[in-house]
Amino acid sequence: MRVRYAETDTMGVVYYANYFVWFEVARCDLLRAVGATYRELEARGVLLPVIEAHCEFRDPARYDDDLEIATTGALLSPVRVEFRYEVVRQADRTLLATGRTVHAAVDGQGRPRRLPADVREVLA
Amino acid sequence: MRVRYAETDTMGVVYYANYFVWFEVARCDLLRAVGATYRELEARGVLLPVIEAHCEFRDPARYDDDLEIATTGALLSPVRVEFRYEVVRQADRTLLATGRTVHAAVDGQGRPRRLPADVREVLA
Amino acid sequence: MRVRYAETDTMGVVYYANYFVWFEVARCDLLRAVGATYRELEARGVLLPVIEAHCEFRDPARYDDDLEIATTGALLSPVRVEFRYEVVRQADRTLLATGRTVHAAVDGQGRPRRLPADVREVLA
Amino acid sequence: MRVRYAETDTMGVVYYANYFVWFEVARCDLLRAVGATYRELEARGVLLPVIEAHCEFRDPARYDDDLEIATTGALLSPVRVEFRYEVVRQADRTLLATGRTVHAAVDGQGRPRRLPADVREVLA
Repeated sequence: MRVRYAETDTMGVVYYANYFVWFEVARCDLLRAVGATYRELEARGVLLPVIEAHCEFRDPARYDDDLEIATTGALLSPVRVEFRYEVVRQADRTLLATGRTVHAAVDGQGRPRRLPADVREVLA
Repeated sequence: MRVRYAETDTMGVVYYANYFVWFEVARCDLLRAVGATYRELEARGVLLPVIEAHCEFRDPARYDDDLEIATTGALLSPVRVEFRYEVVRQADRTLLATGRTVHAAVDGQGRPRRLPADVREVLA
Repeated sequence: MRVRYAETDTMGVVYYANYFVWFEVARCDLLRAVGATYRELEARGVLLPVIEAHCEFRDPARYDDDLEIATTGALLSPVRVEFRYEVVRQADRTLLATGRTVHAAVDGQGRPRRLPADVREVLA
Repeated sequence: MRVRYAETDTMGVVYYANYFVWFEVARCDLLRAVGATYRELEARGVLLPVIEAHCEFRDPARYDDDLEIATTGALLSPVRVEFRYEVVRQADRTLLATGRTVHAAVDGQGRPRRLPADVREVLA
């Protein structure tokens, strides 16, 4: 993932809220890699709204930096899943930030809904 | 409207795409002022997707600037509306940018749909 | 603060990263209210990059919602400050989210720098 | 380029201002491909602020779509450059949008500055 100019701010570094956008890209890539795109989950009636988000910022990312986001997912319960993220600058392997998001599995009406078995399996 | 830190970039000025976000805020405020919020329009089955957007940038806006956006709307046809924008910095009344968006009036399936008569009237 | 269309996503609710943008607006408003705009702080050589950000999401905000963000600031040390946020929907006073950011006070080179005495006082 | 969830809005399609963010990514990729990254240009004291931006939207992009942006650059004068963009959905080769940005070449103080000869050459 390469830092976009739009993602920087007057301090010359990446605006902090954008790390959460990257987290979303990273967890969707993870789901895709295990065979369950978020778009398909939605089509199957499962949404995964964020109910908690956290990030610690160690070193700033700058425009045009090449970043890597290592992501892992884990079931907290049949209706709750957690993702963890590490943002690393590729050039020197510096750890820039670590984060965590927790998601509720719900249906279109916002009611709790168990994650499909195949998704639970790959995230277990 | 006050410039947010998130809206600036490494150059220390507002990132150009954000002017289009402000235009959206300005045209929604205009609709609200004439008694037709965009939310209500949606509830009545009328969407106004942008089909054309244009902006000319004269002078950059910076973090914390107080801006004013003068907006006018005009019907191009019963299914097409145009908004024009002037972004002015309040402190010294400098004109920072001028813009224009054109919108199609469509229903939920994307088919052309006449704007409600009351909205057509106020925009005429 | 009124929810912008740009801030919503396909789920029809506000995209989670935008709460952190609002937090920034809220803490800058707080600083302004106590007589210390962030822009002036920067001019005095003090930057306040975020080193930790957290948010819990209870109920989603939607397009055009009127929101209120109650914000408090507290010194954690002479070079560290914390802000806490509560996002409330004005129409029904529902608490939508609570959050927290921690900031390091640094100079232009990123070295720790004590917050000016007048700012420390109002945040104490 | 894959559409991010953050880039969609309540209508379920990509928010229009984000096309301009993609244009920026596309023109930076073009500069990189011809051996002149924007970061290096900045280091050489040349900035390329946008002075005009235009986009026509034909068909909406949706979450998770794979998009391709064909970009060409052309010198309008030694201190002015234009980029043109075509956004195509890869799955069915549909043209979703066409756009155009014009940029002034300036130095750090905002004064006109001729583009370096090597960049002028590749964009001619």
